[in-house]
Amino acid sequence: MELKFSKTITKPDFQGEFTASILAAAASPDVISFAGGLPNPVSFPVKEMEAATQKVLSEQGAVALQYSSTQGYLPLRQWAAKRYEVLGVTDVEADDIIITNGSQQALEMIGRAMIDPGDKVLVENPTYLVALQSFHLYDPQVIPVDINADGIDCDKLQAAIDLNPDAKFIYIIPNFQNPTGLTYSKEVREKAAEILKKSNLLVLEDNPYSELRFSGEGGKSFGYYLGEQCCMFGTFSKIVSPGMRIGWICCRNKELRAKLLSYKSTADLHTNIFCQMVLAQYLADNDLDEHIAKTKELYKQKAEFMMECMRKYLPAGVTFTPTEGGMFLWAELPEGITALDLYRKGLAQGVAICPGDPFYETERNVRTFRVNYSNSTDEAIEKGMQILGEACKELMA
Amino acid sequence: MELKFSKTITKPDFQGEFTASILAAAASPDVISFAGGLPNPVSFPVKEMEAATQKVLSEQGAVALQYSSTQGYLPLRQWAAKRYEVLGVTDVEADDIIITNGSQQALEMIGRAMIDPGDKVLVENPTYLVALQSFHLYDPQVIPVDINADGIDCDKLQAAIDLNPDAKFIYIIPNFQNPTGLTYSKEVREKAAEILKKSNLLVLEDNPYSELRFSGEGGKSFGYYLGEQCCMFGTFSKIVSPGMRIGWICCRNKELRAKLLSYKSTADLHTNIFCQMVLAQYLADNDLDEHIAKTKELYKQKAEFMMECMRKYLPAGVTFTPTEGGMFLWAELPEGITALDLYRKGLAQGVAICPGDPFYETERNVRTFRVNYSNSTDEAIEKGMQILGEACKELMA
Repeated sequence: MELKFSKTITKPDFQGEFTASILAAAASPDVISFAGGLPNPVSFPVKEMEAATQKVLSEQGAVALQYSSTQGYLPLRQWAAKRYEVLGVTDVEADDIIITNGSQQALEMIGRAMIDPGDKVLVENPTYLVALQSFHLYDPQVIPVDINADGIDCDKLQAAIDLNPDAKFIYIIPNFQNPTGLTYSKEVREKAAEILKKSNLLVLEDNPYSELRFSGEGGKSFGYYLGEQCCMFGTFSKIVSPGMRIGWICCRNKELRAKLLSYKSTADLHTNIFCQMVLAQYLADNDLDEHIAKTKELYKQKAEFMMECMRKYLPAGVTFTPTEGGMFLWAELPEGITALDLYRKGLAQGVAICPGDPFYETERNVRTFRVNYSNSTDEAIEKGMQILGEACKELMA
Repeated sequence: MELKFSKTITKPDFQGEFTASILAAAASPDVISFAGGLPNPVSFPVKEMEAATQKVLSEQGAVALQYSSTQGYLPLRQWAAKRYEVLGVTDVEADDIIITNGSQQALEMIGRAMIDPGDKVLVENPTYLVALQSFHLYDPQVIPVDINADGIDCDKLQAAIDLNPDAKFIYIIPNFQNPTGLTYSKEVREKAAEILKKSNLLVLEDNPYSELRFSGEGGKSFGYYLGEQCCMFGTFSKIVSPGMRIGWICCRNKELRAKLLSYKSTADLHTNIFCQMVLAQYLADNDLDEHIAKTKELYKQKAEFMMECMRKYLPAGVTFTPTEGGMFLWAELPEGITALDLYRKGLAQGVAICPGDPFYETERNVRTFRVNYSNSTDEAIEKGMQILGEACKELMA
């Protein structure tokens, strides 16, 4: 039997092999890895989850194990809707929320609903690797718009819209972006919202990290500025548990929501209701903010310690953008050295970074790289940065 | 903002609205519904699941709540691999298994991996509605091959293959098929396997119901006859819990498996590991066969009672195929009456059936309909069949 695969699945997965090889190398137990992006287990409320599970199974076991609705468990949707108040959006209703298998599934669903081959979509440059992979399943023309320390470059955004008035959507991560850790300033938020409001773009705001702000003050969601023009993705992965695979799409546009629901109904019927109910029970019985505060305290210490080590051990010429939250730092090597050079040299000496390359639609052999601090010991952070510092010096010599 | 959706999502969902309207009507608490397909909660081991959850969270909480691998939890894959022995397939390895969000996700994944627009795929006629919906996402030309009381019509299968040597795959449900409840006889299995072996078709064997055989003797999987030419789907939905959304693909073809894994990694990263671990713990600590025996005992009683009521209350001219397992019965009205006629008349009197129409690729206003017995009380079964009998008589008058 000779299998004849579809064209979609036959073309190389966007940066998939590259990323897989990096993560595989980084997974070796002998390697200090800053390459991945795992939350620290301190963010998993194991004991509380035990109590919640017990309660759900003893009180509603037959519901938790039975088929359920595609849209998701109502109390969980109510919680997600109300939570938007902290982002300044006060008019979200439970009916606007669709529970998904992590917010990652939301990316694929949006690709399905919006992209025909050749359609134009805008993304930040660089942007979240898996968003690029997801969208590329549907063969769009991806138009990257640079971001800098204050957020998306508004002049370039305006220019990209003017040049591509037929683009379908823009995908943005305004808070502690993955990979860069960058956050949009208030000014950039307002300016970008003004520009987007005048455009015909659907705005997809991904937001896995805003709850992890440990310093400074957070900004409003684009859903506040743009209403139903903005579709917001959320997740419990970074604040409660990624293993449960529970995220959501907040879609206030009824027409789009109906299409997303119809697709999810065919794709996998519904997200596991058992975990949805356990999570809702956990949220009802516990103070989530108190729980997140513990995670933030740890991440603040880790981030500050990593920044301290970077200042101490990385040679002048290697720069990085300080962060006030999230899980990542973004650094840049001086001209003449690529992140892949450092990746290879670091790995040979037992430290893994994530080169910036897969986060760019087109640029390759870039000088930027991502380091993750959420899940390393202080010892690993210090030793890892010492080794990276030496590696940089050798490469610069 | 005027949204411009993709073409895929804009075309009408294959039979989606039709089915949604039927299920919505059937969901009214005043209606006796034989239209759906819910397992009886007796098949949910609630207490045992409580113990398993407790154990997983207290012993491996940080693993159960953390990100995990795309392929799925090894002990669960080992269990699924070994379970194929009861279907005569003794050489399945854990590495052949990919855990999915119910076997429903497997359908979408296969569509993605195999179908380009216009590609030919073969299905049983009638076949599982959601399989048709899933495949139609990818715009294939669907070629239905009739099934009868002994299974797929082998002459028609041979003719369909001869006429369409370029078809990509055939999708079959050889055991207690949904919607018909039909099972392939040993002779048909062997004959069909012989025909398929000589073809260039990938064979997709869906098998949610073989574990629910309450009489007679089951046949072997097509994976026994065809080796890696046959990709087998499985699920825990009908024997443990559908709410957990845990199924699998057993794919012994390495090339296809790599493509499915790469796609799932982009689509939703992995199936929720918390439920995978709880399920594996449940399977390790309990006798699943003993548990299934209880479910089968109940379903046997319900099936036999429903068949008794059908013989008693439905007028001569209405026929049905007796079953030895699964969850459904398949009936046929005499010429001149459509299943939709009976559906409407029944619903007006408080009983819902599922008309056969959405299970056919092309035929409409058919005379066949599906009734589900797994989740109704005996009182509901008797009263429902009385009402349906009267409705039939009026329609035939």
